[in-house]
This record gives sequence, C-alpha cells and structure tokens, in this order.
Amino acid sequence: MKSIKIGIIGFGTVGSGTAKVLTENKESIEKKTSCSVSIKTICVKDMSKMREFTVEGSTMTDNPEDILRDPEINIVVEVMGGIEKSKKVIEEAFKRGKHVVTANKDLVAEYGKELTELARQKNLHFFYEAAVAGGIPILRSLQYSLTGNKIQKIGGIINGSTNYILTRTEIEKLSLETIIEDAKSLGYLESDPSADLDGLDAARKCAILASIGFNSLVTFNQVYVSGIRKIELEDIEYADKLGYSIKLLAVAENREDGIVARVHPALLPKNHPLASIKYAFNAVYVMDEMLGETMFYGKGAGDLPTGSAVANDIVNICKNIANNSKAEYAYNLFEDKKIIAIENQYFQYYVRLKVEKNKKTVSNFVRTFEYYNIPIYSINQWKKEDDLGNQFDEYIVITNKCRELDFKRAIEEINMLENILDEAKSIRIERGL
Amino acid sequence: MKSIKIGIIGFGTVGSGTAKVLTENKESIEKKTSCSVSIKTICVKDMSKMREFTVEGSTMTDNPEDILRDPEINIVVEVMGGIEKSKKVIEEAFKRGKHVVTANKDLVAEYGKELTELARQKNLHFFYEAAVAGGIPILRSLQYSLTGNKIQKIGGIINGSTNYILTRTEIEKLSLETIIEDAKSLGYLESDPSADLDGLDAARKCAILASIGFNSLVTFNQVYVSGIRKIELEDIEYADKLGYSIKLLAVAENREDGIVARVHPALLPKNHPLASIKYAFNAVYVMDEMLGETMFYGKGAGDLPTGSAVANDIVNICKNIANNSKAEYAYNLFEDKKIIAIENQYFQYYVRLKVEKNKKTVSNFVRTFEYYNIPIYSINQWKKEDDLGNQFDEYIVITNKCRELDFKRAIEEINMLENILDEAKSIRIERGL
Repeated sequence: MKSIKIGIIGFGTVGSGTAKVLTENKESIEKKTSCSVSIKTICVKDMSKMREFTVEGSTMTDNPEDILRDPEINIVVEVMGGIEKSKKVIEEAFKRGKHVVTANKDLVAEYGKELTELARQKNLHFFYEAAVAGGIPILRSLQYSLTGNKIQKIGGIINGSTNYILTRTEIEKLSLETIIEDAKSLGYLESDPSADLDGLDAARKCAILASIGFNSLVTFNQVYVSGIRKIELEDIEYADKLGYSIKLLAVAENREDGIVARVHPALLPKNHPLASIKYAFNAVYVMDEMLGETMFYGKGAGDLPTGSAVANDIVNICKNIANNSKAEYAYNLFEDKKIIAIENQYFQYYVRLKVEKNKKTVSNFVRTFEYYNIPIYSINQWKKEDDLGNQFDEYIVITNKCRELDFKRAIEEINMLENILDEAKSIRIERGL
Repeated sequence: MKSIKIGIIGFGTVGSGTAKVLTENKESIEKKTSCSVSIKTICVKDMSKMREFTVEGSTMTDNPEDILRDPEINIVVEVMGGIEKSKKVIEEAFKRGKHVVTANKDLVAEYGKELTELARQKNLHFFYEAAVAGGIPILRSLQYSLTGNKIQKIGGIINGSTNYILTRTEIEKLSLETIIEDAKSLGYLESDPSADLDGLDAARKCAILASIGFNSLVTFNQVYVSGIRKIELEDIEYADKLGYSIKLLAVAENREDGIVARVHPALLPKNHPLASIKYAFNAVYVMDEMLGETMFYGKGAGDLPTGSAVANDIVNICKNIANNSKAEYAYNLFEDKKIIAIENQYFQYYVRLKVEKNKKTVSNFVRTFEYYNIPIYSINQWKKEDDLGNQFDEYIVITNKCRELDFKRAIEEINMLENILDEAKSIRIERGL
C-alpha cells in the first residue's frame, strides 16, 4: 500500500473541514484508493490559537516552507485564501513536484490558466472542486461527465450568502440592511461583505465555470457584475406580488459569436426551479442541445461540504498515483472565443418608478420607452405614502425583451422627466434558464 | 493523434443517439481527447430496415462477430438490450481486449460484479453511465466526485415513464389506465410496460446505485419492489387534497446493520423538491453526513440524453487510452453488508378505507390499528357515491411511523371487518428524503 502524505496550508473553515472528512472517512478512503492517506503537517497563521479540532499524528507549524520543503509530502492543500501569496505557495509546490488541491476561487479565476500550465509541465495534479459551489461536484462533472457535450449555457445560484439574504428578506419581510447585519452576526457573511454583496465572489466562480465548460478562457474582469446592494425590500415584495422571486444569478452563455458571462440579480418566475433554492443552498444548471437541462444542487459552503470537495480531490489524486495515471486538467483551453459585451444583449426588465401622485406621467415614460424600442409588457400602479405622510404613486413596468444599451438610454431619459421622484430602479428578468 | 475505432452493437434509440452525439461533437471530442474517434462498424438486427440516420464512413452488419473479431476496434458499445446474449457479447469483447460501454441496466444489475472482474483482469474499461438516470451523471459522481464520502442514502425518481404517468394523472385528472394507453401510443411506454409499471426498471437501477454508492453488492432480487399498478386516480386526488404528490421512489439506505433497498410509490409533501419533478425527468438525491444533501436532476431517457451519457463514457475511455491511464471500476465492492428486509423498517402510511355509509366503523379500525401499535396521525372522511348511485364513506387515515410488519397485520385484520367494503389501499409516506 502506497503511503500518501498531505500538508494543509491554512486551517480555517475549509482546512479544518478537510481534515475532519479525511480523518472521519480514513478507513473507506484507504480501501478506495489502496493508499495509506495521512495529514502530516498543518500550517497555521497563529500557533498560539486554541483549536477545537486537531489531527492526531500531525505536526503544526506557522511556516509553509515546512510543508513545501518536506520531500515526504505528496499533496499540498492550499486553503489559506488570498491571491498573490497563495500563488507563490502553489508555484513552489509544483516546483518541488507536489500535487496541489485548492479551494481558492479568487486565485483560480485570476491565475487558473497559468498555474495549470505549470502543473501540466510537471505532470502534477491541480484540482479545485471546492472553489465553485462547495460540495456540489460541478467542476468534475463539466470536466469528465459532460466532456462529450458542447455546453451552451451554465447558470444558477452560486453565492450562498446573498441567496441566504434574499431568501430571508422575502420570507421575513425585513429590510435587506437588517438581514445583512443579522447574517454578519450569525457568520453567514464576512465582516467586510463586499465580495458577496457586490457579486464579485459569484463572478469569479462564473469565470471558472465558463472557462471549464466552454474550454475557452474567461477571466474575472470579463464577467459583467452587478450585486444586490441596490435591491430593496419593496422590490422583493413587488416581485412577489407579480409572481417572481429575486435571486443573484450567474450565467455564462456559449454562443457562435462569443461568450457572455454575467452576474446580476434577476426576477425568476416562482415556478422556475431556481426560484425554490432557499437560504445558503447552491444550484447550477447546465444546458446542452443533446443533453437538455441538467441541474446540480447542494450545499455551497460550510466546513464539511467544502471539506468534502477538497477531500474528494485528494482521493482522486491518490487513486491516480496508485494507478500511475496521468493528471488531466479542467482548464483545457483549446478554444479562443471572444467575450461579448452585455450592452448588446437582450433582456426583459422590471422597472420601479416613483412618481408624483395623480400626475399624468404614464404617457411620458411610455413614450420614452417606445422611442428607444422598449416594448412594454405590463404596467401596474400602487398608491404609496412615505414616512412623512406624503402620498405618491409607484408604477411597476415589465418590459418585453430589449437591447440593454437602448434600455439604459431610456432609463437615463426617464430619470430626467419632470414628475419622476426618484431614480428608476431596474432588475433583469430571467425566464428561460 | 491516436486513432480510436468504435463498434456499436444495437442501433435503436440509444445506439443512434450515441452515434448522433459522437458525429455532431466530433471536432470538440477530438480536441478534448487528443484522439481521432470514429464509428467503424454498426451491428443492427435487420439490415433491410430503412433508417433516418446513418453514420458516414461506417459499415453496417447484422453479425456482432464483425465487431468483436475486428482487431482495429478498441471500444465496443453494447446497446442491444437483453441479458444473456449481451453478456456473451461483452465477455467476448473483454476476451479480445476491447473496452466496453453499455447502457444495459438489466445486465449490470445482474452481472455487474462478474463483468467488472473480467474487465479488471484485463485492465479494460467497463462504463455504463447511461444505465441509470440517462443523461444525469450520477454513477460517475458516486465513483469519483463523492468517493471521499461515506454515503448514507441515495434516493429519488429514476423511472421517467412512471413519473410521466403519475404527473399527467395528477394534472389531467384522468384514470391511470387512460394515461397509460396514451403514453403507449406516444412512445413513453413500451407495448409491454411491466418493467416500468411494476417498478422492475427502477429496482435494477436502485441495485446499481446502492452497489456503487455503498461499495457493497446489491442485486436486483434484493431490492423490495412494488409498482404503480394499484394506484388509482382517487389516491392521487386525496393525496393532492392533503398536500402530497405520489411518486415512484427508489431508495437505498446504508445503515450500520446493513442495507435497505426499496422501490415503491410514496406520498411526498408538495414542498419536497422531488414532488416538483415532472413528467419524464429524473432526480437523484445523495445524502452524506459531511456533505449534506446533494441533488442531480435531468433527462432520464431519450436518444440524445442517453446517447450523451454513452458518448461521455467513450470520451473518458479515449482520454485514458491517450494518457495511458489505468481503468477504474464503479463496482468496487470491498464491503460485504447484509440486506435488511423491509418488514422490520418503519414507515408512515396513507390508508384509504371504503366503508358502509353512516356505520360506526371508525372505532373498529382505530382499535385494530392501535392493537398493532400503529399510531394514528389523522383521519378524514369523504362522502362518496359509486356509478350506480350507492352512497358510501371513504376514510383517509395517515399513520405515524410504524413497523411494516405490524402495519401489514393490522391491514389484513381491518380488511376482514364487517363494514369495510373494499380491500384497504395503502401507500407509504416519505418526508425526510
């Protein structure tokens, strides 16, 4: 039985989750891999910190070199987070002939191609299933199970924190700010929640999904991003009344003329399966002409689901080592497709317009929409009153599909109309995902 | 570039679907595998039959030996169906050093272990992703993506035909017989629909899922099976009124003391995700303590989804051939768990009792339930009239969890009570899947 030794760099949520899964399932993993698999060294930031979970038989260090320079260690697990420092650690691991597993989406979205090249040169494994959608095995499915298909679209809910916030807002009917503060105190959101709320986390995952699914490089900065900060409880309530739920969606489309990758909130009809994905769960749809729709659903975060994904990567490396099988790479970028800007894409929109009470404004904004070729599907009026007792009207306009650029221009002009009280709020509508 | 030649034995739905996917995606498959992949020979039953789809450059034959004896052919695709003859073909293929892909669940459920042994001895691939849940990559996910986990439960809807019938019955409110006849004429059901309606097809898939997921052999005859023939429109309507949908479920549980594998209709609460799986779609849940719940959803049948699964198996073999990587086997049966009989399992039940009008029967059947330790959760009465104008009462009893054996005894006794007009109908209730 071959002995495989693992070094874990970073021992936060994912690192300790990985260690728990490997420890708990040690016996069955050894039967499946025909390898003796053990964690030799764990590198932590602060050696003095008290830990509720430790791994028997492993050594603690605060110096990554103790792992990188140890010739006995076969697999390095990088779960320290951050980009530049992690990149150096992984490069160093490859240089020293070690396989690498990471859960670091920021890193893969930025340097996935470069690091894959390094690994390929040395015939080393580079796996990162945990980087996207936690415990859902979507990357391995794209790389292996759907590899004979030409995937046209990948989309879904891949940020659990924002989905948790949107779900609670819809159910509890409290302001997003209140839920966000509560989510922070419960640990569902970091103290600086920008990466989640601004959609950056989802955009990184979207870039990775598109790169693997379409075999063409998509980087983080090529993904159109709009977060959930501008969503208000009112929008969620209006959407609800009209039969929609608001979700933060990530969508990557593989077209003849290029790739569209986008992350933004969207109204989904309530009978759409993604509308029923609640709280911190993730779900990813894959669309292919031959296969039709396939959906993967599960826990997108948490120590044990994410740790399971890392552990499964490790087990697959062990099997390959035992079998003397060559590494394969998820970033297999033989296509070179251009990225299509969102301005020329067509969407349906939800628009919320706050207007002066009883003024004949509808003809005004309708004329502007029509001037810019924005076909109107429905208009509904609600009578409202602000905290000071001032009455106003609110119109919810649902458009048919129109070009993003035309829509933007129309909204700019509508915002300048006389009786419009606030800036118009707009959210895309997604039906067909 | 290595040249890989394929022989397809059987050219019905799956065979032609496979050929379509391989032909349509030829270019991207060659880029992904670094192999030139072509279909050399297709073996059909009837050479004279007109076919709407043929493969350019391939030869037709009606003799499987033309494929099995051809030294140029690397991969044999067995999609002819049946058990004993297919087994001989596959054994012959292995003997002659050919990798095998099949979609034949009957065969794998019966001889999966034996054929895996043969393949292993010769270091040949034996893949059958298409055998369970068509286009959903559940077998590869169990074998690779969730291999580091100890799976506790696998369950879901894995027979599209019965789900199609149950969905249409619920929506259209027509008798099952009517829908079944219509499904036959539309090609959703074979002219002899026993394998689907009696749950045999689902039981075979259940045996395969359990064997792979739990690494312990479960054969078809070890799966408890009960089909949907006894379900009536009335049951679906009562279930609907009480907030449930009826689905044919396959469930495999991996317990400390053994494995339970079962296929039977069940009432699912309407807010359970499986309750919303409509028509011919399939969905499989995988439960693991570490990972939580993961769900896979997609098309369970049809030429192109199933053909995609076969094509993906072929692509994975090609990659391994190009990389000189060793074959791995889904049937990795290092555990030897016993099979637990369903009689000692605990279920909640739905019971439909037809009783004489206005007779004081409730105390009678309640006393019998209680005598056998069947706790009652709810009793609801409906006033009914048969086609001849005779009035009767119908009671729907929902029990709490009780032992299958006790429940059976109680029902036997209730059936003999004086005022009971028909045999009691009972269906299990599943909440926690």
